[in-house]
Amino acid sequence: MSEPRFTPGQRATLTRTITEDLVEHFATLTGDTNPVHLDEAFARQTRFGRRIAHGVLGLALISAVLGTQLPGPGAIYLEQHIRFLRPVYLGDQVTAEVEVLAWDPERRRLRLQTRCLNAQGQEVMSGEALLLVEG
Amino acid sequence: MSEPRFTPGQRATLTRTITEDLVEHFATLTGDTNPVHLDEAFARQTRFGRRIAHGVLGLALISAVLGTQLPGPGAIYLEQHIRFLRPVYLGDQVTAEVEVLAWDPERRRLRLQTRCLNAQGQEVMSGEALLLVEG
Repeated sequence: MSEPRFTPGQRATLTRTITEDLVEHFATLTGDTNPVHLDEAFARQTRFGRRIAHGVLGLALISAVLGTQLPGPGAIYLEQHIRFLRPVYLGDQVTAEVEVLAWDPERRRLRLQTRCLNAQGQEVMSGEALLLVEG
Repeated sequence: MSEPRFTPGQRATLTRTITEDLVEHFATLTGDTNPVHLDEAFARQTRFGRRIAHGVLGLALISAVLGTQLPGPGAIYLEQHIRFLRPVYLGDQVTAEVEVLAWDPERRRLRLQTRCLNAQGQEVMSGEALLLVEG
């Protein structure tokens, strides 16, 4: 059988540095110009004390792991739940990690735990995804 | 009082055409190079028959409304749940819409319904967001 097989506990990761350049390009491309991401003086007045990355940028890294590694090409997003737990500061290194929770081969539904960790190993976001696997 | 006030039913929207150029730049920037977004021949073999936009790109439009309009600058993402209901094809016009469900002024928590509609008025994604509003 050429059916894809996914096993609970199976994992994939992607690590990326969230540079100022990346955050500014993301803001320009998406139109999300919240000054907490772009304006150092504004950000200084917030509880974070300096600029933070867009939460959706972390989700995009999770989506990149899903779409290129696990389950990989043919992955179709059905659902995502995510909690943003800690700020990601400009210059932070972030690792997006996905881990198989359950695979339903008949309905081709794959449920995964999805999270991002900072360089200190702290969860910065955490949740679950449900995907359809074309194939 | 200069406290921000949010009322259930209060809304904001943003409409954007999801061009091929936008999808390709989003793929390059985020590393999400799933061929269902980039490769016409691959996409033709899927249930969609042609290339579709990244689900997270729709979420980025929702985040843009949250971060620039309602609640606007100072919005901090705490949580997002989203279901992807229909594909967004390249060239589709998408309207991201957020609507206040509940505002807790003491904890500064704002709960909103979040969705994207296509030009035919069909929901392409739908869910809820929880935000902290810096003040």
